[in-house]
Amino acid sequence: MKLLLLPGDGIGPEVLAEVRRVIDGLNAHHGLGLNVENGDIGGASLDRHGTPLAPHVLEMAKASDAVLMGAVGGPKWQGVSYELRPEQGLLNLRKGLGLYANLRPALCFPALADASTLKRDVIDGLDILFVRELIGGVYFGEPRGIETLPDGTKRGFNTQSYTTPEIERVARMAFDLARQREGRVCSVEKANVMESGLLWRETVTALHAREYGDVALSHMYADNCAMQLVRDPRQFDVILTDNLFGDILSDAAAMLTGSLGMLPSAALGEPGLPGLYEPIHGSAPDIAGKGIANPCAAILSLAMALRYQLGRPDLADLTEKAVSDVLDAGYRTGDLLGGEDTRLVGTEGMGRAITERI
Amino acid sequence: MKLLLLPGDGIGPEVLAEVRRVIDGLNAHHGLGLNVENGDIGGASLDRHGTPLAPHVLEMAKASDAVLMGAVGGPKWQGVSYELRPEQGLLNLRKGLGLYANLRPALCFPALADASTLKRDVIDGLDILFVRELIGGVYFGEPRGIETLPDGTKRGFNTQSYTTPEIERVARMAFDLARQREGRVCSVEKANVMESGLLWRETVTALHAREYGDVALSHMYADNCAMQLVRDPRQFDVILTDNLFGDILSDAAAMLTGSLGMLPSAALGEPGLPGLYEPIHGSAPDIAGKGIANPCAAILSLAMALRYQLGRPDLADLTEKAVSDVLDAGYRTGDLLGGEDTRLVGTEGMGRAITERI
Ligand SMILES: CC(C)[C@H](C(=O)O)[C@@H](O)C(=O)O
Ligand SMILES: CC(C)[C@H](C(=O)O)[C@@H](O)C(=O)O
Repeated sequence: MKLLLLPGDGIGPEVLAEVRRVIDGLNAHHGLGLNVENGDIGGASLDRHGTPLAPHVLEMAKASDAVLMGAVGGPKWQGVSYELRPEQGLLNLRKGLGLYANLRPALCFPALADASTLKRDVIDGLDILFVRELIGGVYFGEPRGIETLPDGTKRGFNTQSYTTPEIERVARMAFDLARQREGRVCSVEKANVMESGLLWRETVTALHAREYGDVALSHMYADNCAMQLVRDPRQFDVILTDNLFGDILSDAAAMLTGSLGMLPSAALGEPGLPGLYEPIHGSAPDIAGKGIANPCAAILSLAMALRYQLGRPDLADLTEKAVSDVLDAGYRTGDLLGGEDTRLVGTEGMGRAITERI
Repeated sequence: MKLLLLPGDGIGPEVLAEVRRVIDGLNAHHGLGLNVENGDIGGASLDRHGTPLAPHVLEMAKASDAVLMGAVGGPKWQGVSYELRPEQGLLNLRKGLGLYANLRPALCFPALADASTLKRDVIDGLDILFVRELIGGVYFGEPRGIETLPDGTKRGFNTQSYTTPEIERVARMAFDLARQREGRVCSVEKANVMESGLLWRETVTALHAREYGDVALSHMYADNCAMQLVRDPRQFDVILTDNLFGDILSDAAAMLTGSLGMLPSAALGEPGLPGLYEPIHGSAPDIAGKGIANPCAAILSLAMALRYQLGRPDLADLTEKAVSDVLDAGYRTGDLLGGEDTRLVGTEGMGRAITERI
């Protein structure tokens, strides 16, 4: 089996080095037999190949069983033209691999609950799974651009667009995943002001009636969802939403947990095709190169790949357990709240501690 | 001077009855001389006039000095066609009056800080002012609709669109307001994935350089802003953003304060034209008609109208002080956290207690 590593920018390379260490451990002691390749993406790719995603890297991704990315972006590439932004590399990769469903768990690690800005009793045991549509909506809709109007002023425009098949395939993913959890899906849009949201609601409702009567379905407007995530986040099981709302709401939810440096994500397409796994956190240019970034989210992204794609749920469990054991043993990177009986470690220290338990 | 009251749906009529009581007090004891008219909007208007905003009500609004609305919407009108939704009445009113800037304060009342799900030390003294663009963006962009594709599937689409003049006028409002506060504006978009956001960022940057060098300007992506609001909301002074991001982010921020039933808002257009004032909370159909809704947000919306439009900042201060005195005296509606030395009152009890102090 083949895993493509795309370290990218900022803290990406540092945290992926620890993923590498974990893979070496799994290969050596548990017969994982995973071959690792490396490729460029984002600003790193722009610097080296003049494009944020080179065609040969997309080909390597397609030929892999799974792809694991670090992070993209940073102030260094602030001024580059729109098509060359580091983020465009990530968007092209998502689109190129057909990754329509972004799974983003927001869960609260008990050892870290006190690090949240929310009161412990509000977030203790929090476990939400976001299923975000990832290759449609306003991120990819046409027409788009900036035009000059007859009077010399400018107009910037984008198109929010969803078709019934696009909505159905991601909704199906949410319903299927809910069946393995508490069996509840909350679908989020602004059907009260946007026709695309209205079609979203109607399509999800119809699919539910046809095929998923055993799953409980509710609907919520995106503004209310933002409120409810703050008021009582534990009311949610699976949240199904579009590309843009999913971007914003899943980030808010991740921050609620106090465990941002701990949260992985998976982007999936059709069964059998490679998925893209990445930490939820960004490239964090302010701490890049200092060896203090938390590698846990990246390592847990590997666990998601082991579970969903590499056919080794046993090793996914093992890796997740190693991470939580290390937390329980008091290991903390700088982003995590310390306290009595905790020990501050760097990126490598955390990676080594986890690998030792594998 | 003339104020148009639009009670609307759900708890709207109940809370506006208490606004009425406060106005009577201000007229009787402080020579306000405000004439009050009533009109229909939302579901109430649909039931009575077959449209969520009748042309004569829009004319009454234009002929007033200010408009104060309760709330619109509710399950009763769930099934009506798109153009007839209660919300459409509100959108038509905003557009019809040219109300391009929505001012939404998110502030934490000290007496209520413990009601927040966030830790007290994170939100104590919180005071953010959102300036949300209100009559552009994806809410109003054309083309929009639901179409049937050649293969029989459907496509729902909306257009996100902003012109430089649309961006400039609302940005000007944000910069002007920041000058009366801490002098900091954070402009929020997704310039990394949307051209409309890129034009937004460039236009705000250019206006700032030309005219507002004394104000500190920063930029943030909307997903990061959602995170930062949870992580450290007090980092913000004025947040300037578009219609859709403003809808979601300002609701999240309102919920952070633990004072949702306390928060007013103002929608303003060109100087001299009537503004629209309304509580941030919705129509709350689940508690409508029970006499338990909190009228404070509506009463504080009246205070905003007194300050921004009716030329009586002294009476705005008086009204705001009456509200905070009543809270300090321990009066609480059911939505507010009680505790020792507090007294549970209904909508009318709260309205009377405030009016007595006027
Ligand atoms: C980097 C950026 C393009 C991306 C997005 O907006 O989707 C990021 O915020 C994410 O959520 O993965
Ligand atoms: C009722 C609805 C149309 C409205 C909006 O989305 O603008 C509301 O959520 C608001 O924020 O005032």
